Amino acid sequence: MTTQTVWPDRTITDDLSRLRDVNPLVHCVTNLVVTNFTANALLAIGASPAMVVAAEEVADFAPVANALLINVGTVTSADVDAMLGAARAARDAGTPWVLDPVAVGALGFRTGVVERLLEYDPTIIRGNASEILALAGEASGSKGADSTADSADAIDGAQLLAARTGAVVAVTGVVDYVTDGHEVVGITGGHELLTKVTGAGCALGAVLAAFAGVSASPFQAAVSGSAVYALAGERAARVAVGPGSLAVALLDSLFLIGTEHDELLGRRT
Amino acid sequence: MTTQTVWPDRTITDDLSRLRDVNPLVHCVTNLVVTNFTANALLAIGASPAMVVAAEEVADFAPVANALLINVGTVTSADVDAMLGAARAARDAGTPWVLDPVAVGALGFRTGVVERLLEYDPTIIRGNASEILALAGEASGSKGADSTADSADAIDGAQLLAARTGAVVAVTGVVDYVTDGHEVVGITGGHELLTKVTGAGCALGAVLAAFAGVSASPFQAAVSGSAVYALAGERAARVAVGPGSLAVALLDSLFLIGTEHDELLGRRT
Amino acid sequence: MTTQTVWPDRTITDDLSRLRDVNPLVHCVTNLVVTNFTANALLAIGASPAMVVAAEEVADFAPVANALLINVGTVTSADVDAMLGAARAARDAGTPWVLDPVAVGALGFRTGVVERLLEYDPTIIRGNASEILALAGEASGSKGADSTADSADAIDGAQLLAARTGAVVAVTGVVDYVTDGHEVVGITGGHELLTKVTGAGCALGAVLAAFAGVSASPFQAAVSGSAVYALAGERAARVAVGPGSLAVALLDSLFLIGTEHDELLGRRT
Repeated sequence: MTTQTVWPDRTITDDLSRLRDVNPLVHCVTNLVVTNFTANALLAIGASPAMVVAAEEVADFAPVANALLINVGTVTSADVDAMLGAARAARDAGTPWVLDPVAVGALGFRTGVVERLLEYDPTIIRGNASEILALAGEASGSKGADSTADSADAIDGAQLLAARTGAVVAVTGVVDYVTDGHEVVGITGGHELLTKVTGAGCALGAVLAAFAGVSASPFQAAVSGSAVYALAGERAARVAVGPGSLAVALLDSLFLIGTEHDELLGRRT
Repeated sequence: MTTQTVWPDRTITDDLSRLRDVNPLVHCVTNLVVTNFTANALLAIGASPAMVVAAEEVADFAPVANALLINVGTVTSADVDAMLGAARAARDAGTPWVLDPVAVGALGFRTGVVERLLEYDPTIIRGNASEILALAGEASGSKGADSTADSADAIDGAQLLAARTGAVVAVTGVVDYVTDGHEVVGITGGHELLTKVTGAGCALGAVLAAFAGVSASPFQAAVSGSAVYALAGERAARVAVGPGSLAVALLDSLFLIGTEHDELLGRRT
Repeated sequence: MTTQTVWPDRTITDDLSRLRDVNPLVHCVTNLVVTNFTANALLAIGASPAMVVAAEEVADFAPVANALLINVGTVTSADVDAMLGAARAARDAGTPWVLDPVAVGALGFRTGVVERLLEYDPTIIRGNASEILALAGEASGSKGADSTADSADAIDGAQLLAARTGAVVAVTGVVDYVTDGHEVVGITGGHELLTKVTGAGCALGAVLAAFAGVSASPFQAAVSGSAVYALAGERAARVAVGPGSLAVALLDSLFLIGTEHDELLGRRT
């Protein structure tokens, strides 16, 4: 039932080319730990980030954006109106949007916020295994924002969640899995050292939003975005000495991947 | 009417030396995407950043600072009192202050905040072409925080805005232009890849504030700060593989530029 | 009365090994300039950061965490409840917690917040000389968040503060000093260039919290954490060109220090 995807796949490279042609405007309401890295990842891949977070502005902005990302990593009561307003505006305008339910299930307040966000029909839900299992209603565990379960163990839960919500679900882990409730695609690549870079997963959520703004379907967007990100991560890990240089190299790789400089990338990074 | 400035210009290097002697304290109320990069850019150039953002503290702090930066990039209603209080305190104390009106004109809430900030007589206004044209009352366009116009197209608008507000206006783009309403100086340098580093423009606003804290005039401060930053960016781009390594190299270049290590810089970065 | 500590000290390397075995969950309520760097420093050293900042969530989280860090660098009135709630929950649960009183004494609002936090018995107080002297009730000076005094001048004040509060006090400077009110240990290492990296001191506060979550005593935690961090900083400075590359190298060094890659570190970074 699970198929593996291998780069270069023509659909994926086409999506990446389209992303760079369109330069999609990606509206982000994300957590305060990763705003900078997320914006830089979007710029590097070829998108245009816009961190518009005022409750007074989100509803005007979500409709003009090509895609929206909402990440609840550091949500406080002051942020809830902006998140809900952005999600509602995106849903009403037909703007695809990605929900990143960081640490859902582990903490009560954000779990309530995520439940309210789900009412606005996210296009893609991206999380680690613990988060996806929690949303699917299956007991799991987590350690802060880190998963204590393997992504493979969350495939059934991801399919259940996708079927129930209508969203494409992307489970991130050693292997990433993308499902629309029926089909499941596994994406290899990346590197374990990426778990030592804060925001590496959060930035993937933003990259999926960028692809959702230009791809033929949310499912294809999640597969293409995950595959490009995984390869960029794998390449970055080859030149990194530790997590500091890995974060820098990941941004460089996202910029260089699939471009005319790609041969150069193969040699230099 | 436009003159070009070329490094090394004696006035510019004198301003940079003075900046490093004084180590100006630069009070920043800036957006949450770029706080870290802005603080690091100020430290690298030789200034002392202070991200004091509590409404209860800004009025006490702006008068003891050498300069103030206000950047509305992610302004929410919770930030307005602190911004207005800081601007008022700076104006009343004679502390030079820089206004960075990110995405003004594109979104209603922040446009209202910028209008209120303008009442406190900013010393320098730094923006991209779309922002400066919006402030000058000329129709333009923008894509989130990114300009859709060329800086050269905003020279007239910048002169108009400078004449109306009494502020020095700095328009950032492929060529940066600085005007006091009469004289216009163009500054070349930098690199296109800098547009792929989030906060590169915002950090320039902070650097202009640092120069405003030590220069003979706001006009000279904006020219010196823009010239130093442009050269640092140009040098950084020579050693960067992509936007990740460019951001790192930019901080290194800002630190090394104009020092006894400068020859070394020519070889190593 | 002051003893110097020299790496490798068996107690220190044991603490570091234990930290990596336990992978302590470190709850951080810190300032918005340094959240990303702090999280990355914790990941690099082998801890698990959790930036939980909602007033609704902190009390649930502090007890399950191995340690807590509270840093008042950009505290606003909106953050006070979360800080006090986290400190109270940590104290009640017996979770060790580190207080980083950034710029205390220099600004009234945060000074009041720090006084209220002190009522919850911090396990370790980490600050620069100006901050420690201010808390000890001795007049000093500061420049924004930067100290204007030498760490050695704050040893007496640190001992006084430790005796009065029951906390271990760590004074950061060219030499770091750790005291429980009786014993004083001096830790050399680090590099002056680290003062040009924003958040280098704040991240140390988080690292001390991580060690407090696994060490035999708060005093030993502060010594071990300071020593490991100082050596990592020293090594990072050897390969850095400026403050940008230093920040990257510091994260790499924190990751590599004391591991099987350590020999490699000696050669490569």
